[in-house]
Parts: sequence; C-alpha cells; structure tokens
Amino acid sequence: MLELYHAEPASNSLKVLICLKEKGVDFVSHLMDIQAFEQHEPSFLKINPDGQVPVLVHDGGVITESTDINEYLDQVFPSLPLRPQSAIECARMRVLTKYVDEYFRIALSQIGWQLMIHTITDKLSPEEFEAKLARIPREEKREKWRIAAAQGYSHEQMAAWRRTLGEGISKMEAALANGPWLAGPHYSLADIAMFAMAAHMPARFGDIMSESVSPRVMDWHARMKARPAVAAALAMPTPKRG
Amino acid sequence: MLELYHAEPASNSLKVLICLKEKGVDFVSHLMDIQAFEQHEPSFLKINPDGQVPVLVHDGGVITESTDINEYLDQVFPSLPLRPQSAIECARMRVLTKYVDEYFRIALSQIGWQLMIHTITDKLSPEEFEAKLARIPREEKREKWRIAAAQGYSHEQMAAWRRTLGEGISKMEAALANGPWLAGPHYSLADIAMFAMAAHMPARFGDIMSESVSPRVMDWHARMKARPAVAAALAMPTPKRG
Repeated sequence: MLELYHAEPASNSLKVLICLKEKGVDFVSHLMDIQAFEQHEPSFLKINPDGQVPVLVHDGGVITESTDINEYLDQVFPSLPLRPQSAIECARMRVLTKYVDEYFRIALSQIGWQLMIHTITDKLSPEEFEAKLARIPREEKREKWRIAAAQGYSHEQMAAWRRTLGEGISKMEAALANGPWLAGPHYSLADIAMFAMAAHMPARFGDIMSESVSPRVMDWHARMKARPAVAAALAMPTPKRG
Repeated sequence: MLELYHAEPASNSLKVLICLKEKGVDFVSHLMDIQAFEQHEPSFLKINPDGQVPVLVHDGGVITESTDINEYLDQVFPSLPLRPQSAIECARMRVLTKYVDEYFRIALSQIGWQLMIHTITDKLSPEEFEAKLARIPREEKREKWRIAAAQGYSHEQMAAWRRTLGEGISKMEAALANGPWLAGPHYSLADIAMFAMAAHMPARFGDIMSESVSPRVMDWHARMKARPAVAAALAMPTPKRG
C-alpha cells in the first residue's frame, strides 16, 4: 500500500509525482491545499511533525523529504533505474539534487511566495493569518511567511535570488554539454529534481531560461515534457480554490 | 589512488575523515588552511570551482559535498556498510543527514564564524580582506563573511541559530529513544554526520548539550568518541597558524 500526501504538481510535490509515474506504480493520492495551510492541520502533523509535503506512506512507514523519497522509491522499485550504476555518476547526480534543494529551490520558492502571498492573505483577517502562522512547526518557515506578507523582501534580496536562478541555469547548461542528461549519459533523479523546479520557468522567467540564453536547457526541457511520465505528473489535479 | 582535500578535523571535513577511517582505506591527505582562504586559491578552484572543502579525488574523478562523498565511499568500499540495508531505515538516515546539512550545520557555522572572524581579519588589512572576499565563488558565502566581519549578526539572529541547535539536539535525543544509533539499530552515516557537528558541543554549548539536557545524546557522544576510527579522525592535524 503506497500513499502520497502532496500539493499541486509543482516543486517538491512534482518531483515525487514524476518519480512515481516513471516507476509506473499505483498509489493513493492525497491532494492537499498548501495555500490553505492544510499541511499544518493537527491531523497532518501526526503524519509529518514538520508540517511539510510531500510525504510518502509505504506499508505504514512514513518517509519525508522529496529527495529522500525519490531515492527510496528507486531502491524499492528498481525497474527503470533512476540512479546511475556508476558510483561517480551517482555521486554527481546527488551533488545536483543537493544543489537544487539547498540553492535553486530556495531562491525559486522565496520569489514565488513573495509574488503570490497576497492572493492567500487577502482571504484572511490579520488574526486568522497569525493563527495560521502560529501552527507552522519550523521557525524559519514562519519567518518566511511573516516577512513576505508584511514588508516583503527587499529589492536587493529578490535580485540576489534571481541571480541564483540564473547561476543555476548556467550550471545546467554547462552540465548538458557532457551528456543528454544532467548527470551524464543516463536519465536520473537529477533531471527529475531540476525539472520539478524549472517546468514553468520559460514562461515565468524568460530572461533567465530561454532559447537564446540556455539552448541546451530548453532542448532538455522539451525532452522532459515529452516523457509520458512527466506529462502524466504535470496533468495531476490542482486544489479547487475559491 | 584516493586523495582528500580537507580542513582541520571539524564539521564537514571531520565527516569525511571519520568515514575514511571507518572504511580503513589509505588516502593522501591534503590539509588546507581555510582560515587563510586557501580553498579560494586559483589552483584549488581548478579542482572545485565552488571553492569548498572537503573534496575527494578518486582515480582522477572529483567528488564534492561531504554528504555525497560519504555515500560514494560507502558504495565503493562496501566493507563495514554505513548505510542501513533496509530501505526505510536508509531513507531515515538520509532525512537526518539532510537535516544536518540544511539546518543544524548552517546554524553552527554561522555562530562559529561570528565568534572567530576577528582572529582571521585582524591579520589582514581591509584591502587584503576585500581581496580575499572577492575570490569566493558563491555569493551567499561572500555575504556571510562580509556581514560577520563588519557589523556582525544581530542578537536576534544569533539567538535563532542557537534555538535551531537546541531543536536539533532535542530531535537527536528523541531519535535515540528508538535505537542505539540515530537511524535505529545500525551505526550509519547519520551518526557520522551529526557527530562531525556535535563533537565539541558539550564544551562549547553546555547549555544545549549536556548530561542534564540530553542524556541519550551524551551517551551516544561517548560511544562515538570511543570508536577507534572516530578517535583517529579527531587526531588528524590542524594547520599551523601564526
């Protein structure tokens, strides 16, 4: 029995959805509305005290952190291996997934929250918003929401995160000179991790990721979208919002 | 042929040194003085353009990031396995090493830099310091040094990082209720990752990690120190400083 608690097909939730679709395994989908802070409901905190999605539940065992979930899925469902057999290629894959987690995703998510926060907070009174914030288990996340909702991040800070995105795309452009896939000759969890972040970047960050700036990344992006598993993951539903 | 570029036996360098000693494999040690910014020298940037240690070079292949280096070492030298065989235990191990990388080590390192930065900058003129900074490849690191050396981090920020350390130790105390080691019944890379950060904490952060606050963590700490490989790693040399 395999269950996934996840948000709409974007970012870390998309990362695990693509992996599950690539593996072709059946799973029960629990779609959660993170814009309504459902991941901080007491009932969900019993499953993941960190109050974050995605979370995989497999035969009663709970696995958190999208990067670790995908490593787990590849170990448990070894058909269509998504980790290179060569140890050094596998290490390079992990350096990439780690880079996505520690730099690229952070920058993208901070910019994203700042741009969308008011569509969330406008539905709530200040007291309701404070009550939602108070339930967030991790202090760093509480602060992120509070700053984004109040004064917003500075122009300098937003510019620095945009530079991080640009550096990330340059890094991928360079990596793709050495093989059709980010970690080299084999399609891997690194491609899935990066695509989960970059899926909508050509439309939203056309100055950072485009045919003229990053032709190899755009070609890779098209090959990713053409994969049936990727298309199936992107077609997963989004929460109905009023 | 196995070579390791590393700093003194602390933090991420200690993490890989312990793993190598546990594996009992011979390696060539290249000790670097990170307080003299040797990791940003052009000759080293050819090996790791990110300007960070530790870096492993194995038969000409370069592997960066201590967490990924240790996964690599465990794959290539499988005697004394340091990743649990059970997939779910292995996933929990990775969630812990990821937590150390993304939360615990960041807090510890920011506090550490703030406390020691002036022993470094006092030896340099402002121009020399700026020249050293200018060579740091990652913008985030440049900013960390600049802020720590200039105004310093705020009291609130330092207090928040100390709270992160306290939360981390509580998390470890809770994990050790379920087994003698952090990921459960087996000694693993999670123990090595956490110990590399916490080795000197009882002396330096006695209010956060002590017999009264975290008895299970202290017992684990004593068992870690008693391991010959851990003792050998801790006994590795430190750069001679004037």
